[in-house]
Amino acid sequence: MPALPTFPIDDFPVMWLRDNCPCADCRDPRSGQKLFQISALPAALRLDTVTHTDEAEGPAVEVIWAPDGHRSTYPLTWLEANRPGGPATGDRRTDDRKELWKAGDLTGRLPQAGWDEYLGEPGVRARMLDSVLRLGFMLLSGVPEREGQVFDVAETFGYVRETNYGKLFDVRVEPDPNNLAFTSARITPHTDNPYRDPVPTIQLLHCLVNDADGGDSGLVDGFAAAALLREEDPEAFDVLTRTPVPFVFRDAGTELRADRPLIGTDPLGRVREVRFNNRSIGTLRLPAAEVEAFYAAYRTFAELLLRPELQLDLRLSPGDCLVFDNTRLLHARTAFAQDGARHLQGCYADLDGLASTLAVLRRADTLEPLAQLFAGPGSAEYLGESVSMAEHMLQAGARAEADGAPPHLVAGALLHDVGHFAGAVTGHELMSGTDNRHSHSGADLLARWFGPAVTDPVRLHVAAKRYLCAVEPGYHNRLSEASQYTLRVQGGVMSPAQVAQFAALPGAADAVAVRRWDDEAKDPDAPTPPFEHFLPLLTALLRG
Amino acid sequence: MPALPTFPIDDFPVMWLRDNCPCADCRDPRSGQKLFQISALPAALRLDTVTHTDEAEGPAVEVIWAPDGHRSTYPLTWLEANRPGGPATGDRRTDDRKELWKAGDLTGRLPQAGWDEYLGEPGVRARMLDSVLRLGFMLLSGVPEREGQVFDVAETFGYVRETNYGKLFDVRVEPDPNNLAFTSARITPHTDNPYRDPVPTIQLLHCLVNDADGGDSGLVDGFAAAALLREEDPEAFDVLTRTPVPFVFRDAGTELRADRPLIGTDPLGRVREVRFNNRSIGTLRLPAAEVEAFYAAYRTFAELLLRPELQLDLRLSPGDCLVFDNTRLLHARTAFAQDGARHLQGCYADLDGLASTLAVLRRADTLEPLAQLFAGPGSAEYLGESVSMAEHMLQAGARAEADGAPPHLVAGALLHDVGHFAGAVTGHELMSGTDNRHSHSGADLLARWFGPAVTDPVRLHVAAKRYLCAVEPGYHNRLSEASQYTLRVQGGVMSPAQVAQFAALPGAADAVAVRRWDDEAKDPDAPTPPFEHFLPLLTALLRG
Repeated sequence: MPALPTFPIDDFPVMWLRDNCPCADCRDPRSGQKLFQISALPAALRLDTVTHTDEAEGPAVEVIWAPDGHRSTYPLTWLEANRPGGPATGDRRTDDRKELWKAGDLTGRLPQAGWDEYLGEPGVRARMLDSVLRLGFMLLSGVPEREGQVFDVAETFGYVRETNYGKLFDVRVEPDPNNLAFTSARITPHTDNPYRDPVPTIQLLHCLVNDADGGDSGLVDGFAAAALLREEDPEAFDVLTRTPVPFVFRDAGTELRADRPLIGTDPLGRVREVRFNNRSIGTLRLPAAEVEAFYAAYRTFAELLLRPELQLDLRLSPGDCLVFDNTRLLHARTAFAQDGARHLQGCYADLDGLASTLAVLRRADTLEPLAQLFAGPGSAEYLGESVSMAEHMLQAGARAEADGAPPHLVAGALLHDVGHFAGAVTGHELMSGTDNRHSHSGADLLARWFGPAVTDPVRLHVAAKRYLCAVEPGYHNRLSEASQYTLRVQGGVMSPAQVAQFAALPGAADAVAVRRWDDEAKDPDAPTPPFEHFLPLLTALLRG
Repeated sequence: MPALPTFPIDDFPVMWLRDNCPCADCRDPRSGQKLFQISALPAALRLDTVTHTDEAEGPAVEVIWAPDGHRSTYPLTWLEANRPGGPATGDRRTDDRKELWKAGDLTGRLPQAGWDEYLGEPGVRARMLDSVLRLGFMLLSGVPEREGQVFDVAETFGYVRETNYGKLFDVRVEPDPNNLAFTSARITPHTDNPYRDPVPTIQLLHCLVNDADGGDSGLVDGFAAAALLREEDPEAFDVLTRTPVPFVFRDAGTELRADRPLIGTDPLGRVREVRFNNRSIGTLRLPAAEVEAFYAAYRTFAELLLRPELQLDLRLSPGDCLVFDNTRLLHARTAFAQDGARHLQGCYADLDGLASTLAVLRRADTLEPLAQLFAGPGSAEYLGESVSMAEHMLQAGARAEADGAPPHLVAGALLHDVGHFAGAVTGHELMSGTDNRHSHSGADLLARWFGPAVTDPVRLHVAAKRYLCAVEPGYHNRLSEASQYTLRVQGGVMSPAQVAQFAALPGAADAVAVRRWDDEAKDPDAPTPPFEHFLPLLTALLRG
């Protein structure tokens, strides 16, 4: 056994370590959710024995806990990545995770894309959604100028948030407006719906008509403005973060009120939300001195927000759709001639859905090497069979799925032969009499993405053939000719001792199941879904 | 002129006072939104002259501002109600606006109602919605046991929030659950979707079937628990308010993460949000000492939340629908026999919509005296006409509405004759030759609810008759007999001097318009909507 790296596990707080135990008793293997209460752990928890081991996925630390004897195994890579005090990650809502900007910073690099490429190319879509999180907005062009089309845009990344304005709102001049947005007046930079709590975190504006003189749009990065305020007038910044301001809206059927600061910070003092709308600030009820301090700070921030260098000017053309973070960006529009036609349609959505869509898109990115493998070398002939290697694996996955197999076995069936491309010894050499140990090299390759539930059956799928030949009458004769040939190279039919040893392995049953789908998946006429079909299933199985 | 009370207007911060100017240049009369930027006000703003005046609505303070000469008129009642340092109001999200409870506190006073009375009686509906804000929940019974019916419940107060679980989620045992909710396991008290930001603030659970052994529900007031924690272990409370905790969820199509503290406070330290779910707490990345402090506090809070005296036990029966504040209440369920049938349907919604619905319901409460007036004395005969007084006013309102009149004129037409019931001198005495000055007593009565836009045309609608008789040939002859009779009692046809004086009044045109709808509204066959038809319009016109 090679020397294992040691790891300073004592540096980790015990409760944290135990709370992160990855075993199947502590976390539901399907949902990944924790199965125990923090209060159910022994109060006097401590490490009893610590052993460094070499697991299929790499070196690991095995802990046996006192007083309850629970056993936890932590991969070293995971411990290293999550060492206490390491760089904090976060949910991308706070200003430290953003790229703050003034208008000039975006010259020549507006986050924009055409609707067709946005829809058609996952990479473009990911870049655009990332822009909403990073810069606060994206601009799509060529979005069909149909009423209600803005919903199609929202549905690419999330869910529409219905409000008293409806699911969809029309921004045009109305005869009896309940909101200045529906007049032709100039509107200075503001966030929408500050009187709502929870506030809609994303706004979409889709331009259908813009023939009016004026009616140009502007965007201001409220986080950049807050950073400037903190730098230039820290006392004003503090006042605005600690003063809840009543925002109010009322019309015939609605009466909304939220009491929130103009600049919302998280417990660590990071800016998390800007809420600014002069039109709907209600009457503050505070001692006179606090009112005065607030108004001075409010005025300072309002003046700062109007600095021309902060405002990015845009003119929306028909087919443009602006998508922006309503907790960060302020939007504005210039006045326009009342007789000019201007018609936008808008709706609200939320950042959490968008961030989720982006994360899932990126998972697909991480599987790209596997997709390449199916498209490239895997599409070559399968050694001695009448389907290609890729077809063979896709059929195995499809059969597992059709049989109602759990996701990890569908994945195992789909990926069982990737080792033919991964090891130092190729499949062709296997056919010339040299075992390429492709079940092991495949499992090792797959461990980059998946846990043992997927990799174990792959690792054992050749052994399962040798096992079945020993225990199942007629199995050997049903094997394809090529399989019968490689059986000999791979060690031949198992001995009774080997059979007993194999059957005792925890993953034996899963490996046998994968083996049967493997054996059936060599039919040139069988259904063969594309690799993309399996992406959602595979991404859900990716290691956390 | 009577002596006017004086008011210490100098106590008010000038920027606050000016920002609250109610004039039509400062606030859009229709939307109530502010029309100016705070930064557009003169920096060196001060009171130039202050005069106490007597307006139609009562005593007021008129301010002329320096240096810009702007004029603002503040009703004394408004100044008194909004004096700086007076009792703060708020948005009802913070713990100081709640009634905190332990299970025993609710014995015999569960906030519950039957579905039919909830739907049919606005008072019951208001009491139930208020319970959600005050206690954190309401329990409806007798909700039809139809799939999707939970949407009907949500629509009584707000909008459904769609998530990755769909618009609707089924809580029952699923073959391949992505969440423990969809198994038969016990689930300890928790809030839902802590990994979502913004988190859904309301949850609805509608019971369709509950034949299983077990599967009982429990509710814990998280704000009460947080208050206990603050009292018993202030350091633990502080740690939980200042430590952002990663909450995570992932499945095939979703990857959510929110970093929020277990106890969220507002800038004034009031508890505003509890987020607690052991299943989805991810891996904290903090220095070891902070991790240890967090785990100690987390454990203390978790143990506290499990105290039996905190948990209200409920067993949902088919037809029950539980609606609760997901930012405050934790919900739990006992384990149940996997073969027993248990099926709930749930959806999410938001508190802001519910609070708005309640506020609007309460506006209707405030109009109740007017509704009573139409239903009671107003339904009596109209003096000398072939419709009742109520029918006459409803027809006038309907005609104004049909003519596309703005809301304040529809209201004026609808309410122009309420003075017949309000004054010391009745309508019958008018018909015996004593002017009851019902236009004035009506306007005075209405000033309790409405501003001068509504009350002025009412006050002048008798004068408008006298005016039209003077200036419009044929008008007098078209009047009903009763109207011709009362004209004499009311002062007769205007003299040329009176005509000039009337025409110069700012409300003259509105009063003439109301007068014409009045004159036309005496037709027993004309459309006569019920008073409730006008409630949304009237409530929108209520004084702020």
